[in-house]
Amino acid sequence: MNFEISPIGTIHTPFKEKSQCPVQTGAAGEAVGSVELLPELAPGLKDIELFTHLYLFYIFDRAGEVELIRHPFLDDEPHGIFATRHPCRPTPLGLSIVELVERQGNVLTVKGIDVLDGTPLIDIKPYAPKFDGVEGASNGWLEGKDWRPKPEGRE
Amino acid sequence: MNFEISPIGTIHTPFKEKSQCPVQTGAAGEAVGSVELLPELAPGLKDIELFTHLYLFYIFDRAGEVELIRHPFLDDEPHGIFATRHPCRPTPLGLSIVELVERQGNVLTVKGIDVLDGTPLIDIKPYAPKFDGVEGASNGWLEGKDWRPKPEGRE
Repeated sequence: MNFEISPIGTIHTPFKEKSQCPVQTGAAGEAVGSVELLPELAPGLKDIELFTHLYLFYIFDRAGEVELIRHPFLDDEPHGIFATRHPCRPTPLGLSIVELVERQGNVLTVKGIDVLDGTPLIDIKPYAPKFDGVEGASNGWLEGKDWRPKPEGRE
Repeated sequence: MNFEISPIGTIHTPFKEKSQCPVQTGAAGEAVGSVELLPELAPGLKDIELFTHLYLFYIFDRAGEVELIRHPFLDDEPHGIFATRHPCRPTPLGLSIVELVERQGNVLTVKGIDVLDGTPLIDIKPYAPKFDGVEGASNGWLEGKDWRPKPEGRE
């Protein structure tokens, strides 16, 4: 059974091209963007300002072809797609954790954004260390990998 | 523009009814479940065992009607739906962080599961403290709220 998902808004960022996009939120640093929710959904943002950080869920609407085993941006070894955050995945679903700077009506200003301008937003959830800060979790193959620019020719 | 999402597998858990479901992964404790990926996608799990924890993304396929402002399970004050993790949201997308116990082919055994048996899986990503452990993030209205059973009559 398939599910039809209808975007609830749009993410605006300074990144117009894939080559400009940070590799992960962690590398996005101070990049500021805005999350524009459909105006009719704005009541659903009540109390969102109580949280400093949010999860954004979005569709990788410009992702390339799916490869189940591939080189991620941060490693020269290939890994299974589910052991990476690479956009070219069976369900083109993206997740970023951003800092909430302010809310004005149906628009959130956020910091640390790492997605392409115009990305379709499908959900927002509060980030809460209580649920989301797992103590003692491993970094898997990411351990010791430094941030680096995207290797040439990789999208 | 709408997006069609096709499940990539099924989550099997001990919870057959909503009333049995833990309120959050954090409250799910030791509940063990299995994540059965479509066999043809199994190559995408290569190296997943390097991670101790995973994000599961799924569809709340038995969620009730959307209310933009509602009482979450853990509070008696109403909040905007995007300031809660409640299942009845505009996009019925769920997120859980689980511990990976073992992998056997296309099946992952996981601990700390909090979803209904038979929930459609749409993505798996590695949880990495490097990306996902945000220092100094607030718990918003969840601060100081203790785990509690679901208040009667709330779904």
